[in-house]
Amino acid sequence: MKQKTIRDYDIIIGEMQPGYYNMITDVPGVKVGHCTIKNDKHQTGVTVILPKEENTFVSALPAACFVWNGFGKTLGLMQIEELGKLETPIALTNTLNVGLVHDALVEYMVQRCEKDGVTMHSINPVVGECNDCDINDILHRAVKEEHVFTAINAAVEDFEMGDVGAGSGTICHYLKGGIGSASRVMEIEGKTYTLGVLVQSNYGRMNDFTVNGKRIGPEIEKRIALADCTQVDKGSIMMVLATDLPLSDRQLKRVIKRMSVGLARLGSYVGHGSGEVMIGFTTANPIAFKPQSQVVSQQILCEDSLNEPFRAAAECCEEAVLNSMITATAAKTREGKRVHSLSEFADLF
Amino acid sequence: MKQKTIRDYDIIIGEMQPGYYNMITDVPGVKVGHCTIKNDKHQTGVTVILPKEENTFVSALPAACFVWNGFGKTLGLMQIEELGKLETPIALTNTLNVGLVHDALVEYMVQRCEKDGVTMHSINPVVGECNDCDINDILHRAVKEEHVFTAINAAVEDFEMGDVGAGSGTICHYLKGGIGSASRVMEIEGKTYTLGVLVQSNYGRMNDFTVNGKRIGPEIEKRIALADCTQVDKGSIMMVLATDLPLSDRQLKRVIKRMSVGLARLGSYVGHGSGEVMIGFTTANPIAFKPQSQVVSQQILCEDSLNEPFRAAAECCEEAVLNSMITATAAKTREGKRVHSLSEFADLF
Amino acid sequence: MKQKTIRDYDIIIGEMQPGYYNMITDVPGVKVGHCTIKNDKHQTGVTVILPKEENTFVSALPAACFVWNGFGKTLGLMQIEELGKLETPIALTNTLNVGLVHDALVEYMVQRCEKDGVTMHSINPVVGECNDCDINDILHRAVKEEHVFTAINAAVEDFEMGDVGAGSGTICHYLKGGIGSASRVMEIEGKTYTLGVLVQSNYGRMNDFTVNGKRIGPEIEKRIALADCTQVDKGSIMMVLATDLPLSDRQLKRVIKRMSVGLARLGSYVGHGSGEVMIGFTTANPIAFKPQSQVVSQQILCEDSLNEPFRAAAECCEEAVLNSMITATAAKTREGKRVHSLSEFADLF
Amino acid sequence: MKQKTIRDYDIIIGEMQPGYYNMITDVPGVKVGHCTIKNDKHQTGVTVILPKEENTFVSALPAACFVWNGFGKTLGLMQIEELGKLETPIALTNTLNVGLVHDALVEYMVQRCEKDGVTMHSINPVVGECNDCDINDILHRAVKEEHVFTAINAAVEDFEMGDVGAGSGTICHYLKGGIGSASRVMEIEGKTYTLGVLVQSNYGRMNDFTVNGKRIGPEIEKRIALADCTQVDKGSIMMVLATDLPLSDRQLKRVIKRMSVGLARLGSYVGHGSGEVMIGFTTANPIAFKPQSQVVSQQILCEDSLNEPFRAAAECCEEAVLNSMITATAAKTREGKRVHSLSEFADLF
Repeated sequence: MKQKTIRDYDIIIGEMQPGYYNMITDVPGVKVGHCTIKNDKHQTGVTVILPKEENTFVSALPAACFVWNGFGKTLGLMQIEELGKLETPIALTNTLNVGLVHDALVEYMVQRCEKDGVTMHSINPVVGECNDCDINDILHRAVKEEHVFTAINAAVEDFEMGDVGAGSGTICHYLKGGIGSASRVMEIEGKTYTLGVLVQSNYGRMNDFTVNGKRIGPEIEKRIALADCTQVDKGSIMMVLATDLPLSDRQLKRVIKRMSVGLARLGSYVGHGSGEVMIGFTTANPIAFKPQSQVVSQQILCEDSLNEPFRAAAECCEEAVLNSMITATAAKTREGKRVHSLSEFADLF
Repeated sequence: MKQKTIRDYDIIIGEMQPGYYNMITDVPGVKVGHCTIKNDKHQTGVTVILPKEENTFVSALPAACFVWNGFGKTLGLMQIEELGKLETPIALTNTLNVGLVHDALVEYMVQRCEKDGVTMHSINPVVGECNDCDINDILHRAVKEEHVFTAINAAVEDFEMGDVGAGSGTICHYLKGGIGSASRVMEIEGKTYTLGVLVQSNYGRMNDFTVNGKRIGPEIEKRIALADCTQVDKGSIMMVLATDLPLSDRQLKRVIKRMSVGLARLGSYVGHGSGEVMIGFTTANPIAFKPQSQVVSQQILCEDSLNEPFRAAAECCEEAVLNSMITATAAKTREGKRVHSLSEFADLF
Repeated sequence: MKQKTIRDYDIIIGEMQPGYYNMITDVPGVKVGHCTIKNDKHQTGVTVILPKEENTFVSALPAACFVWNGFGKTLGLMQIEELGKLETPIALTNTLNVGLVHDALVEYMVQRCEKDGVTMHSINPVVGECNDCDINDILHRAVKEEHVFTAINAAVEDFEMGDVGAGSGTICHYLKGGIGSASRVMEIEGKTYTLGVLVQSNYGRMNDFTVNGKRIGPEIEKRIALADCTQVDKGSIMMVLATDLPLSDRQLKRVIKRMSVGLARLGSYVGHGSGEVMIGFTTANPIAFKPQSQVVSQQILCEDSLNEPFRAAAECCEEAVLNSMITATAAKTREGKRVHSLSEFADLF
Repeated sequence: MKQKTIRDYDIIIGEMQPGYYNMITDVPGVKVGHCTIKNDKHQTGVTVILPKEENTFVSALPAACFVWNGFGKTLGLMQIEELGKLETPIALTNTLNVGLVHDALVEYMVQRCEKDGVTMHSINPVVGECNDCDINDILHRAVKEEHVFTAINAAVEDFEMGDVGAGSGTICHYLKGGIGSASRVMEIEGKTYTLGVLVQSNYGRMNDFTVNGKRIGPEIEKRIALADCTQVDKGSIMMVLATDLPLSDRQLKRVIKRMSVGLARLGSYVGHGSGEVMIGFTTANPIAFKPQSQVVSQQILCEDSLNEPFRAAAECCEEAVLNSMITATAAKTREGKRVHSLSEFADLF
């Protein structure tokens, strides 16, 4: 699945080293799958992040969320906030489809638990979204249960980025957005840890768009004659972070908040109408549904060691957005206007 | 719809005066509708609270939420927290059905906006839940789109309480729970205001159950030979508050938090597995989708005048739970055990 | 220090067993000290809770806070929220004295660290307060650095309750309030754990006052001819919880929130003007200032085992307030009105 | 008080227009005063922001706070969060001095209320801080009551920036930090509104330092031979925002959060040890201590009009930090190392 990423254009974000794929799937166990829906009416889809092979209801993961700007419809955050754990895959889709995708994740977990012989009566699916109504006929929720199952079954490590899955219809800085990812590795006491980010990008004005410190938005505007006055910083961005660092839920929250640093450097002002939602989990210290004893042992990273994960989160977010854009192909809005691909303007980098 | 409420047993909660129905619908414009599903497999349903006649997308309401205990799956709170507004009816159902009910509310708003000639691309449905798995086959989500529409169309002021709608399969203090409501009126500078609460009750141990200060739970246990050791304070309770007091979203949050006072007096310890979720809205100061000017006028209650609404919220919550129980008829669990009605033990009051 | 507590009047709150002293100091290592200031102008003071013998900067404690009602001036919560740790003793005093007491705790930690040969440049003192202005001339901050040091040096396990230290001038349900405490023990996998609460009580209307489910406030009112109309639920209550249970900071927050259940059962409606602030810490899993490795081991209680600590927190809070009142002697307000002691009305229990 | 600001070096941050002074004092009524303490041991001080001429206890201001990173000791935020109002001047100082400065603000308000014939028993001073221990002997709290009064009495519109007051001893991106400010004006329905920011800058690594998109930190490092490996992103930054826009407290919180965008563009990764605290207030819709009626009228900006204030907040924060640095003169650490002024490296812009 070799796609030309932003690094292939010699844009190097930050100073830390990426993992093997430079994607969220560099975190051992994490897989990503898409189901893309493209037809006359629809250009949308669903993307799922599977945090691990095992049944996540039986063996949940420490998790956290942070709502930078809550103008959005992400489902499932309330319980993450209370219990600090993730017990399903995370699905991303379009805004009005979150209910059906939520129900599909319920069905998936019901079937999975039945298969695994586990009694389950309650589950907390996590579903994020962006509004792709400029490209996709959002009112008729195209994403059905079968699409979610298709995406889950398609999950791999070496996944596609760009205008696929939940990124099929998104627009970012008035260019084509999509699904993007990046990762960073770090060594702590001789052991290598990985932190990765996946974004669904759908926010921002073109005028503000900045690539690695260089504000190229106004240059692109000139070329395509986009009137600045028509632009609003709306849309949304979903940011999902995975790691194998042994972090508590509180520490995870601190780490994922730093993704906003990457976002700001891309030119976002976090507009009123743009839901910026961050979700993070770690594969360390799994939480057993039926623990063998009432007191369990954990390994936890010291607070003073968080600066490197903070930096990794910011770098990954910035690079993941650029990857979502550079791998996306041009599209047409429902009104027939061209949504350009960032790759058309690579000479401006 | 005259049902025998807790007041008919001479149990008077608090010192404030109830409204005409002593229900949430005493707040002008508020209506409540149920759809109950009872068959071989299912005893569940959906209850909707319509905040007003007008299209709530076009004319939204100031709103707030407070998550006392977030072990739950309520949908739609993130945006209420950020924007302080409610833009759909509130629906209550069973835990695993929230996704489908969410989608049904989307469809309802799509149709409503089309009918009203309003362009809508994004909507934030609010769906609360309790886990009725002891009585209802929860894994096969019985509540479909048509049930939500039926409930909406059935909405009235003089609605039924007890084991109806979303309360069909709930259990409270190990007795039959359900939908309950109460209201209080207050006068401020010569004008009468109303505050009402609707609950979906599904929490608590029997042993702790307390009616107006008298702990009758242990007495009921003796009669029905329920072993205390089997009891866990799990379940959940959804608490929805409506008012026409001119409150800001911050003030609304302060008011709804006081519902927890009523809850505590009933014997709740807010168990780990019990999601306690509070949502509130006011019909005052509606928020126009397309305001006529960028700066709008509001009337706001002074902070020092909040003590009476606080007390009203606590009283209403306590009485609403008792009403949900006293109006509910006995049921059978899926395992065949009898879930008694509180009305069988009225001599203990 | 045998004082007649509420149990000596045969009032037994809840079902769990108290520890040896039935005070917060039943948690091993915890000590409490007072300095009381009584003169013509002042009736106030300071109470300190020392969480352990060791230097709390060098070896901090997992901690959490929850602000039920934030009409108050407690200092130091922001960092507890972010880092989940406590690094100084907790001091309680009167509202306008928090700044000076904060500075005194800084000085205490500076001296302590110098003595212990530790380089310290930053410290986060935690100071809570109640407004004792009806009894104490609050505008002239009577509590100085020497009083804080006196309280620290006076810290013991078997401490005095009632109108001492920070409770000298407080009023609760229009009776004399003060410092109160209670504890509960629980066994988990063969090991005994303790949870204790200390309160500084200064809130509530008399009319609402309820002792173990019996509302005696109206009866007291009749005897002392207190006009109900003059009463406002104002004041505040500080609630400090200590335990040796191995809880994460997130779990600690869940536990301390349950103190509000006890508060509600006493008759509080959490009035607008009443700051209700909860702080909790555990002596388990201390946090080293200079950890020996970047990844540390912890023992953590499973989430499903939290119900018993929840109940303990509620029971302790309810009993601690009653102990604060029953041990307090009558006082006079600055205007010369008598503030009765609860002990004068023990026949009403 | 003409100082050479970053605009005088042709660095123009953003696209909006600044106010007359390009300082927080462009908001009508706002004044700023410093008291600087420089002697053998100390290089520190206090800076006060007076929100208006009137007694702020009698006529408070809608306010909000947002804690980006809570590793800090700012006092007074709990009540702002609950009540959404500011009732004193805001003071900034060094970390260990917050208690004494808090007490000084209490004394100031006691005297002010006595002078104004107002009965006051409770007040919530707001005191922010940065840790200036590299330059200042922080353990011996140099800032006393008289310094706070001096700063208040010195408050003017045309105030000094740089290494004065609370900025005397701060370090930012390993250059000399200090007090900086900037403002933006905007027109809404024919009326001009102002938004201004004041920062106390004390955070960041030199390596990350970026001026208007150009990362000059590594260039400066080469010149002064600062080893990158020694750098930690610690310190803190206090960000205070004032406006006369008619914003609710919830809207104010949304606006001040956007200051983090400016911060990220300067090169901050919001390090673990860096307290990033934001406070904002509006002079519109004052809150009377004794309102004339229980329901009051307000003018509130529509939510859709927030994008321009959001952008203004980000631009002001970025420019305010640069102004704090460019106006600061070089200093020496207590260990004798030179802390350069940004003005020495203006050729790198």
